[in-house]
Amino acid sequence: MPTAQTNFNLEEFLAEKKILIENHLKAVLAPKEPATQLWQAMEYSSLNGGKRLRGILCLTAADAIQMGMSSTIIPLAAAIECIHTMSLIHDDLPCMDNDDLRRGKATCHVKFNEETALLAGDALLIEGLNLLSKVELPSPKIVEIIQVVTSAVGAYGMTGGQMIDLENTNKNGVTLDELEKMHEMKTGAFLKASVLVGAIAAGANDSQVKALSKYSENIGLAFQIIDDILDLKSDSATLGKTVGKDEEQKKATYPRLLGFEVAEQKAYELVKEAKESLQNAHINSTQLCKIAEYIIERNY
Amino acid sequence: MPTAQTNFNLEEFLAEKKILIENHLKAVLAPKEPATQLWQAMEYSSLNGGKRLRGILCLTAADAIQMGMSSTIIPLAAAIECIHTMSLIHDDLPCMDNDDLRRGKATCHVKFNEETALLAGDALLIEGLNLLSKVELPSPKIVEIIQVVTSAVGAYGMTGGQMIDLENTNKNGVTLDELEKMHEMKTGAFLKASVLVGAIAAGANDSQVKALSKYSENIGLAFQIIDDILDLKSDSATLGKTVGKDEEQKKATYPRLLGFEVAEQKAYELVKEAKESLQNAHINSTQLCKIAEYIIERNY
Repeated sequence: MPTAQTNFNLEEFLAEKKILIENHLKAVLAPKEPATQLWQAMEYSSLNGGKRLRGILCLTAADAIQMGMSSTIIPLAAAIECIHTMSLIHDDLPCMDNDDLRRGKATCHVKFNEETALLAGDALLIEGLNLLSKVELPSPKIVEIIQVVTSAVGAYGMTGGQMIDLENTNKNGVTLDELEKMHEMKTGAFLKASVLVGAIAAGANDSQVKALSKYSENIGLAFQIIDDILDLKSDSATLGKTVGKDEEQKKATYPRLLGFEVAEQKAYELVKEAKESLQNAHINSTQLCKIAEYIIERNY
Repeated sequence: MPTAQTNFNLEEFLAEKKILIENHLKAVLAPKEPATQLWQAMEYSSLNGGKRLRGILCLTAADAIQMGMSSTIIPLAAAIECIHTMSLIHDDLPCMDNDDLRRGKATCHVKFNEETALLAGDALLIEGLNLLSKVELPSPKIVEIIQVVTSAVGAYGMTGGQMIDLENTNKNGVTLDELEKMHEMKTGAFLKASVLVGAIAAGANDSQVKALSKYSENIGLAFQIIDDILDLKSDSATLGKTVGKDEEQKKATYPRLLGFEVAEQKAYELVKEAKESLQNAHINSTQLCKIAEYIIERNY
């Protein structure tokens, strides 16, 4: 956490927005008839203690453009979190990362079974899009929002990025450009879409959309660089786990390609530019600036 | 095939529509940069020789309401086929039906691998919805179409029905009502949505939508009953496969719950009512009537 420069308390702000989104998710995902494990699995994985960064960015971007949009934007933020949860459930499956735990709790396929996890992911993706299609906004905005989200999470975005990441594993000679492209697709595109959905819903003009695009591209990349640095640090702290380390070293990361210091500098520079881009478009949002700072200062 | 009562040749009609849909799919799904297996897998599974029943129903329903809609409707039909292909790829996965072959060709996870098949299914679902969001129609219609499709394929429809089907396997005492609900969700809802998408796009009025709903619900159920009957017949023809047969007998089907003759009669009655419902709403479509007949007369 950065030292508080204003009265604004980021922690309280994040906690409050998280509750708004989760209350909506609880209402939407409460198990339905006919009673099967499907709704249980959807609810279990959607309410497992995530940070709701994407949903909060959506709400905060909307507020930055036009205050008081919450009742319209919350279903959008919840939809974004449903789609994000789909990607986590499918990522955790045995054929992908084969993870047993997520945030200290059993992953969906461990808690239920693989087929239920597969279907729960599919259903969350579809319910997320269904939620987007039913939000109280003029139809042209809904259509634009659905275009933005589906472009960001499909083969041109998140899913395509996951595929590149799988193919890059154990591949030698991944370049910085290739690494950046992969992250841009895998995590950047959807994070950017989350910001833009809020902005579009709140009626952002072209220059505001442009500024928020730059903001979200930069914080997405900064987030990834810091993730890589934290991974590397935890590597150093666990010397002796040679096998795991060797495995890890095959993977291209920012600190490995750029060096630790240059990578860290790049992350800070990206966040600085993100905030400047808001300022240049006269988007005065302490919240968006603090979220950008939080992204690089977390876990320090 | 029914005896031709008019000059209309169903086989030629189906072949012609299938080509229109597949040409659009080829254009949309041609592998893109960065080159990964993802686009290859999406293309492979989408162009594997399916009947395109759902896409053709969409085109035919649109023509029944307003002729000459093809150039607008083809992308909708292609989108429907993308979403249908997703359900097949995920259904074939080892954790679901674990099928190695579909239409005599290796299934997606056998041809590529499980993780590619999982992601290709996700991406086809998303690209399908992206296609729907970009079709050349007024925004309110696009929103309605996306609501209809997502309601039909999510937890309230297809995906929910797949879950019920999984939970029904090896369950004793499945009632006729439960069986019907399962099929209504698993296959009926999306088949109905395919017809309604075409109808909405072509500007169907309320009574036409109602008639086409009845038509599609009936042919969906008839399709399933005939499927069950064909399965049973092939069972009898393969006497001796005791293990498979025992397994099979645990599963509730229409002929097992109703008896062979009553089930067959029900299918014919459903198709008769489907055609009557079109007639009552003055929807004069030889094509839709012939497709309804084809559904129960296929493989005889």
